[in-house]
Amino acid sequence: MNVARPDEVRKFNRASLLRILHVGGPATRAALATELGLNRSTIKMLVDGLAGDGVVEERVPRVPQGAGRPSLLVLPQAQAAVVLAVDVQVEHAGIALVGLGGQILGRNSWNLRGRQRDPDEVVTHVAESSAMLAQDLDLHPVAAGISVPGVVRRADGMVHDSTNLGWTDVPFGERMGTVLGVPVVVGNDAELGALAEYVRGVGRGASDAVFVSADVGVGGGIIAQGGLLRGSGGYLGEIGHMTVHPGGRPCHCGNDGCWETEVGELALRRALGLAESVPRGAIVAELRELQRDSDPVARLGGYVDWLILGLVNVVNILGPELVVLGDLFAILPEAVVQRVQQEVRTRSMVSRALGGVRIEKSSLGADLKLLGAAEAAFEDVLTSL
Amino acid sequence: MNVARPDEVRKFNRASLLRILHVGGPATRAALATELGLNRSTIKMLVDGLAGDGVVEERVPRVPQGAGRPSLLVLPQAQAAVVLAVDVQVEHAGIALVGLGGQILGRNSWNLRGRQRDPDEVVTHVAESSAMLAQDLDLHPVAAGISVPGVVRRADGMVHDSTNLGWTDVPFGERMGTVLGVPVVVGNDAELGALAEYVRGVGRGASDAVFVSADVGVGGGIIAQGGLLRGSGGYLGEIGHMTVHPGGRPCHCGNDGCWETEVGELALRRALGLAESVPRGAIVAELRELQRDSDPVARLGGYVDWLILGLVNVVNILGPELVVLGDLFAILPEAVVQRVQQEVRTRSMVSRALGGVRIEKSSLGADLKLLGAAEAAFEDVLTSL
Repeated sequence: MNVARPDEVRKFNRASLLRILHVGGPATRAALATELGLNRSTIKMLVDGLAGDGVVEERVPRVPQGAGRPSLLVLPQAQAAVVLAVDVQVEHAGIALVGLGGQILGRNSWNLRGRQRDPDEVVTHVAESSAMLAQDLDLHPVAAGISVPGVVRRADGMVHDSTNLGWTDVPFGERMGTVLGVPVVVGNDAELGALAEYVRGVGRGASDAVFVSADVGVGGGIIAQGGLLRGSGGYLGEIGHMTVHPGGRPCHCGNDGCWETEVGELALRRALGLAESVPRGAIVAELRELQRDSDPVARLGGYVDWLILGLVNVVNILGPELVVLGDLFAILPEAVVQRVQQEVRTRSMVSRALGGVRIEKSSLGADLKLLGAAEAAFEDVLTSL
Repeated sequence: MNVARPDEVRKFNRASLLRILHVGGPATRAALATELGLNRSTIKMLVDGLAGDGVVEERVPRVPQGAGRPSLLVLPQAQAAVVLAVDVQVEHAGIALVGLGGQILGRNSWNLRGRQRDPDEVVTHVAESSAMLAQDLDLHPVAAGISVPGVVRRADGMVHDSTNLGWTDVPFGERMGTVLGVPVVVGNDAELGALAEYVRGVGRGASDAVFVSADVGVGGGIIAQGGLLRGSGGYLGEIGHMTVHPGGRPCHCGNDGCWETEVGELALRRALGLAESVPRGAIVAELRELQRDSDPVARLGGYVDWLILGLVNVVNILGPELVVLGDLFAILPEAVVQRVQQEVRTRSMVSRALGGVRIEKSSLGADLKLLGAAEAAFEDVLTSL
C-alpha cells in the first residue's frame, strides 16, 4: 500500500478479479463488486478491459435468477491463458494443458521405467509430448508447472534429492525452461498436492491445513494462515522424514524409523502381505478387498498405529484445522480412516483444544498433482494477463 | 491496496515508520526514506506529525557522520507509548513496563507457589503490582501482553490447558482485561519467545525460524515466511508433544515418549542426577559445573540423543534456516550444543539440502518472554499512535 499509483492499483484489481473467476468460476458483476469491495463502475471498467482482451466473456445465464432483467455472468475464457502441467511420479509421468478456470483441456501420460527415469529422457519426453498435445489442440501454453517427488528448490527448480527417482542435484527447472521456452515452476509433489486441495479441493477456505500423502515416499504440504509454506531457501520440509520409530527400519535418508519407512508404499505392501515385485495395481485391488473385511484395522496392524502416531505429531506441531490424506492414504478402507480420525482427535492435545481437527481424504483423485502444478504456474500468469 | 484512501495511506505509512524506529532504534530521515520507499517530503510530513504528538524527537547526533551539516536523528520517545509485559512462569511471575523502542523502564517479580498459582491470585497480584509500578514511574500503560506456559487461544486469551500451572479453560485474557482496563493479548510462552527473538534477538531478519525452549514443559514458536505462525483457531501447535519415543515415559497429555518428557526439566534433572525436590537453581549450577567436565555429552547420555532426534524432526518438517534454543536449552554446555549442531546438520536431509541449518542459543536471556509479551502488545499500539 506504500506507493499506490493508479495503474498499479488497476493491475492489482484486475489480477484479483481474474483470480476469483479462475478459482470460483463464473460470477456476476455484482458478486465481483461485493467480493472485491470495489464499486460497480470500477468493476465495469475492469470487466470491459478483460473482455476486450478476450480473457473473459459476458453472457446471459441459462437459468434466470429471480425476477427482472437477468444479470450478466462474467466467464473466464479457458483458452485465454493455458499452462502446461507436468506430474513426474516414480513409475509414471503425465502432462496436461490446463486453461484459465482450471479445466484440463487435454492430456497425455507414459510409464517411467529404467532409463526412462533419467532426467534428460524425462525432459525430452515432456517436451515432445507437450509440443504434440499443443499442436493437436491448437493451444499455446504460456508457462509450465512441474511436480516432482523430491527435495526441490522452488526458486530455480533445482531437484536436490529425489531418491525414489534416483536424481541428485538435477537443475530440472532450468533444463525444462530451456526446451519449453516458457517460464517454469518446479515444486515438490506434496507441496503441489496441498496447493491443489487448497485452491480446488477439500482444503478450500481452510486457513491452516496439512496435506499428507503416501506414494513410494511420504510427503506433506502445509497451508498456514491462508498461504502455502515454502520453507527457507525455497526448500520445503520433508514431513515423511520425521522419525516416529527410533530403532525402526533404516531409511534412505540415513536415519531409521522415519514416518516414510513406517507408512509409505513399502510398509503398506508389508502390511498387506504383498511382495515388492507385485505391481502397484495389486495394492489398490487388495485395499478394495480389505474394505469388505470385518476388521480392516486389525488386518493392517502396526501400519495404522504408525499412521496415527505421525498424524498426532503433525497436528500437535502445527495445530491445523484440517488434515487431508492423499494418494495411498486416500484409498485406505473407510474403517481405517474412521479409526485414524477418532484416535488423532482423542490423542492430540492440540486437537482437543481446537474441539477436534478435521481429517479428510483428498477429493481430487489422480489429477491432484497436475492441478497443483497448473496452479503453481498460474500464480504468475494471473498477474500478467 | 484495493481501496487506498489518502488518510489510510498516511496512517499505514506512519505506523510503518514507527515500527522501524521501534525495532531498529533511531534513524535519519534519509534512512527512513530509503527503507520505506517514500520521498523526503512525505517523510518530513510524517516525522513532523509524530514530533508534534510527542512520539518522536529530532536531535543532532552526538558523533557527526562524515563532513557537512550533520543529519538529524529521529528518536522514538520511550514514554510516548508504554505497555505492560507479564511473564507467568510455573514458579515465578514477572512484570515490566516497556516503552516505545523496546526498553524496559521498570520491573517487578515474585514467586509462584501453591495457592499463589491460582489464576485469580495471579490476576490480582499482576494488577496490584503493575499499578504500583506505574505509579512509581509515573507511566501509564496503554495495552498489556501476557506470556503463559500452556495452550492459549490468542483471539481472547483463553488458557485452554496449562498442566504445569494447573489451569484448565481459564478466561485469563478476559479477567486481566477487566482489572487492567486496557486491551490485553495473551500468548503461549514459546510463541512469544519466538516473537522476541524474531524482533530483537538472534532471529532478526530470519524469514523461517523455529524457537524451541525447555522449561518444565517444552514448547516452540514458528516463524514462517517472515511471520509468526498462529495455528488455527488461534491455538498454536505444541511441539513438545511430538512423540519421539513410542513406549517411553508417560506424559500428562495422555501419550508417552513426548519430546517434553524426554528433554524437559524433569528429564534434565534425571540426566544430571538431581531429585525433583532440589530447587531449580541447582540445575543451573550443575550445568555450569558440567561445562568444565571432559565429556559433557557422555554425562548427559540419552538426553542429548532425544534432543537431537526432536530437532532433526523439527528441521525436517519445517525446513527453517535457523533454530533458536531457549530457556534450559540455552544454558546447556557449549560442547553439547556443538554436538547437537553437528548431528542435526548431518542427519536432517532438509538441512543437507539447505547446506546446513543454523542452530543458536537464545540471545535475550531471562527477559525473553517479557520482551515477547511487550511486542505482542505493541503490534496494535503501533498502528494507533
